[in-house]
Amino acid sequence: MRTPVTIRDVARLAEVHPGTVSRALNEQTRALVNEETAARVLRVADELGYRPNPIARGLKTNRSYTVGVVIPDLTNPLFPPIVRGIEDRLGAAGYTPLIVNTDNDPERERSHIEAMLARQVDGLIAATARLDVSLLADAAAGGTALVLVNRSLEDGSTAAVTVDDRAGIGLAVAHVAGLGHRLIGNVAGPQNVSTGHLRHLGFVEAMEAAGLTVDPGHVSYAGAFTEPEGARACARVLEHEPRVTAIVAANDRLAMGCYDTLAAAGLRCPQDVSIVGFNDMPFIDRLQPPLTSVRVPQREIGSTAADLLLAQLADGDEPPRQVLLEPDLIVRGSTAPPGGS
Amino acid sequence: MRTPVTIRDVARLAEVHPGTVSRALNEQTRALVNEETAARVLRVADELGYRPNPIARGLKTNRSYTVGVVIPDLTNPLFPPIVRGIEDRLGAAGYTPLIVNTDNDPERERSHIEAMLARQVDGLIAATARLDVSLLADAAAGGTALVLVNRSLEDGSTAAVTVDDRAGIGLAVAHVAGLGHRLIGNVAGPQNVSTGHLRHLGFVEAMEAAGLTVDPGHVSYAGAFTEPEGARACARVLEHEPRVTAIVAANDRLAMGCYDTLAAAGLRCPQDVSIVGFNDMPFIDRLQPPLTSVRVPQREIGSTAADLLLAQLADGDEPPRQVLLEPDLIVRGSTAPPGGS
Repeated sequence: MRTPVTIRDVARLAEVHPGTVSRALNEQTRALVNEETAARVLRVADELGYRPNPIARGLKTNRSYTVGVVIPDLTNPLFPPIVRGIEDRLGAAGYTPLIVNTDNDPERERSHIEAMLARQVDGLIAATARLDVSLLADAAAGGTALVLVNRSLEDGSTAAVTVDDRAGIGLAVAHVAGLGHRLIGNVAGPQNVSTGHLRHLGFVEAMEAAGLTVDPGHVSYAGAFTEPEGARACARVLEHEPRVTAIVAANDRLAMGCYDTLAAAGLRCPQDVSIVGFNDMPFIDRLQPPLTSVRVPQREIGSTAADLLLAQLADGDEPPRQVLLEPDLIVRGSTAPPGGS
Repeated sequence: MRTPVTIRDVARLAEVHPGTVSRALNEQTRALVNEETAARVLRVADELGYRPNPIARGLKTNRSYTVGVVIPDLTNPLFPPIVRGIEDRLGAAGYTPLIVNTDNDPERERSHIEAMLARQVDGLIAATARLDVSLLADAAAGGTALVLVNRSLEDGSTAAVTVDDRAGIGLAVAHVAGLGHRLIGNVAGPQNVSTGHLRHLGFVEAMEAAGLTVDPGHVSYAGAFTEPEGARACARVLEHEPRVTAIVAANDRLAMGCYDTLAAAGLRCPQDVSIVGFNDMPFIDRLQPPLTSVRVPQREIGSTAADLLLAQLADGDEPPRQVLLEPDLIVRGSTAPPGGS
């Protein structure tokens, strides 16, 4: 028995994306394809004997070859590399990712996701912490494949890619403890945001694992992941315990705020106080001193999410997989042994 | 005669986006809307006596309330704020921007735009330098509204929002000339890219306007807008004319490369050489020294593009407008009088 010819076979020979083949073969959308390209696709499809197969193993038949990607804030430098990772994998498979930016606004999020479902995307990759569960139910009921990024559902009912935030902070604490620091402060993020909460938990765990105590005064919670909040929280830690020799911040912007507070107090980094950030943002290696930071594998988050989605699209019975990715620590000039020796 | 009730009237009273009203009123898409919301929309539409009006003054009837936004590279920090500006305006008008990232790949660009046209977007905002003219023709023929960003067509046939690159470099040159510099170098961008070309032209014009000469050896062309290329081009300028006291770079990443070359040569910025960048990227104020840079009104580029598109959607006969936005100069610590006094 011969393997049936697929849209992908036609695409490969015609040297176009599968989405283009799909549109060229459909009389209603053919006019959208360049005339010459459409003629080539039709010729190749004819030569290969391609026949559309509308009941292939219960799969969704009318593929749009588009996937919705829901991002809370594209101006946060964490997200564009995730999008790039998604693009790389989906683009190679002939899918167009349609990205929406929700600005963390639940009303906008709902409206944007509805709009994409109405445009019949084949799947959704959602990197938003606020995602409304009723929207998920709508999407799943309509046969839309779904992968969550940076968040998972507790019941494991949905495929998800997350990063091990606690392990990441663990690397930061182990690094400064290994340099000989004992009085280590924590500029923690907002505790109503999962990354803020998990990174603070990770700090406490790692300090215990290193046999170090966490005095409540050594921890200060920023109200938001911003430089001014980092500066304020750092000042509170130094006020309570001026002998602190290292500070682990919950992200790079909070760490930049710590730099400001140290400079204002006439303290040097790393000679007087070592600082560690989280996220390894672009150009953070250009700060003075360059910031030691926990690197999150952003592009891999995106490509892994795309892989999980493509697996669901290839096989509607694919069970939802949860993938936890491990961060690295990038050591730079902002950390040194106590006393800066 | 009473003004007819519109979808926007229903949306306002039902406190939802017009796109949601459109989907709730259409039986084929009603299931995509939250049940309670759909019921509220139907009730309000009934109370107001809303009747769909399919031949309203020759406008496209079947609005999808989606707009395609074509971006060449979301990981370039210039683009997310432009997207945010587009979002702000379109979101407020009830439209969902569907963003695609082309990675500057013409094949991917064509495929992504085709996919969006097949999803029946009402309009396109394209921020890509390579945009294929045949795609524009397809889009216009299908009645799709179109606005170009950072590029215009010479015949003025298309609405466009661009930034005055030549004027921007003019501000940079006037600033260092005003500080007293006479021997001013130019680390120019690649000349096959319009921004690289226009900014170099602007440099030559502004030097002439300041009564200063441009020796060919004072100019060096980077092969790409990257730090290593900036470092190489800066080294070539210094090799040819070691007495240069200021360098105008065609963007911030090239300027960062100049910092590297100065440091390697044991030269101080700004005491020995002043440096000016272009774009005012995020966190560039955190460099040592903070970089003086030409600020492009990115968010305003986006909101202006959205305004032009909304005007076209409101009135199909709206003539294509070209808007040229003016940049500012943000003066920081990387520029000082010659000798750093």
